[in-house]
Amino acid sequence: MNVTPSSTPGSTPGAALAFTAEQQLDDGVLERRFTLDGIPGILWTPPSATSSDPAPLILLGQPGGLGTDRMYPRLVGRARHAASDGIATVALEGPGSGGRPPLPGADQARAHLRTALTAGEPVSDDVVDRLVLPLVDQAVPEWRRALDALLALPELGGPVGYSGGVIAVGVRLAVVEPRVVAAGLFAGSYVPRATFEEARRVTIPVHVLLQWDDEGNDRQAALDLFDAFGSTEKTLQANLGGHTGVPAYAGEDAGRFFARHLR
Amino acid sequence: MNVTPSSTPGSTPGAALAFTAEQQLDDGVLERRFTLDGIPGILWTPPSATSSDPAPLILLGQPGGLGTDRMYPRLVGRARHAASDGIATVALEGPGSGGRPPLPGADQARAHLRTALTAGEPVSDDVVDRLVLPLVDQAVPEWRRALDALLALPELGGPVGYSGGVIAVGVRLAVVEPRVVAAGLFAGSYVPRATFEEARRVTIPVHVLLQWDDEGNDRQAALDLFDAFGSTEKTLQANLGGHTGVPAYAGEDAGRFFARHLR
Repeated sequence: MNVTPSSTPGSTPGAALAFTAEQQLDDGVLERRFTLDGIPGILWTPPSATSSDPAPLILLGQPGGLGTDRMYPRLVGRARHAASDGIATVALEGPGSGGRPPLPGADQARAHLRTALTAGEPVSDDVVDRLVLPLVDQAVPEWRRALDALLALPELGGPVGYSGGVIAVGVRLAVVEPRVVAAGLFAGSYVPRATFEEARRVTIPVHVLLQWDDEGNDRQAALDLFDAFGSTEKTLQANLGGHTGVPAYAGEDAGRFFARHLR
Repeated sequence: MNVTPSSTPGSTPGAALAFTAEQQLDDGVLERRFTLDGIPGILWTPPSATSSDPAPLILLGQPGGLGTDRMYPRLVGRARHAASDGIATVALEGPGSGGRPPLPGADQARAHLRTALTAGEPVSDDVVDRLVLPLVDQAVPEWRRALDALLALPELGGPVGYSGGVIAVGVRLAVVEPRVVAAGLFAGSYVPRATFEEARRVTIPVHVLLQWDDEGNDRQAALDLFDAFGSTEKTLQANLGGHTGVPAYAGEDAGRFFARHLR
């Protein structure tokens, strides 16, 4: 697999983007639903975003499989926070999530994962690869096509950040997509072996969030991944608590990381 | 050694504090030099600190042996930053630092440390104990006597935070001194075995700063110490770079930690 920076294969800028609904939130943020090559997404733009002062953009990564509808309350919270810093945000329905066709081999990989977890056994590298890599391989080019289309809008100008999980998706994007200049990564998902190698090639600033007691996460893998990043600016913020217990101040610190690098 | 919260043995509040010099800094911060039982120190108070609105106080810990004079530029920077949040700060010449008498066994412990480092051997627990514990045993009661005296000033009201190194001093203070309600600890010094045990008894919020590539620091020991803290709010922030390379934004994040818990 080629992870060298390159143009998106077969991209047709702007062509496949269709807005389907819009509403203005109470704080003036414009929320627009769209489809891109049939994939649903949501774009939030701050009131300050205009063609004469286009906004930077943060890609909101989501946990694999949960779906944008279920994640909406948390996504819109992050979108409002970014908008208060003058930054636009976008969520894209992930491969295999929320009504989209399942990823090849996903059911079997999840069954193997459940078997290992039920038996209290470590999750093998092979299961992790089959669970995560098909998602990475499909999600990354989708994000890049979304960038082609969205950055053609006059009110969006870049630079672009990636925020959230799946961490392997964020790492791959940081390597292959030169428009992504900062990554705020949530260490809360399994890390394929290939991702550690890709992390060495990441040179953009990274801010890694780790929940110290995340029951479904391998703490040592997160520390090893942080160590592997080749970036000259990298920060790990670990907080007490489980997967969903990220404290409010951690979200604010991540917001300041993006404001520092995107504004 | 008794590390149960208790009143300071033999303390005579306010009695031994003598101000020796004062100057107003350009941002309105009042800098006063003092001696306390003959130990030199510096107190910085924000313009907002008055008897009707007394300021919280942060104890500025320093690296062992460097001395307040040599550390002054960095100390005053931290003091000005805290003052901008309405928080007073104090530095106290550490045991064995500046012109103070050397700690018992310090020369021999440092010689053993140098021997180990020169030979590229690991520093033994025994050397760490002899290097750090005498400092902790002497510095902690001195800080507590300083609190007795300083909190008697009408412009200081508490609560109190501890900020910096030596990390074993901060941990001991967090356990024994109930007036200390938040600790921002710099993981940049050797950690005695006893400190890991004491960390389990720490219940106040802690914000631990770790330089990921600190040449003189054991990264795993810092992670183990963070894991050991019994606090329900604890954050580890690790940044790329060596011992003295703490990025400016890390200082700002630590400042927000204190503002959150002391204001």
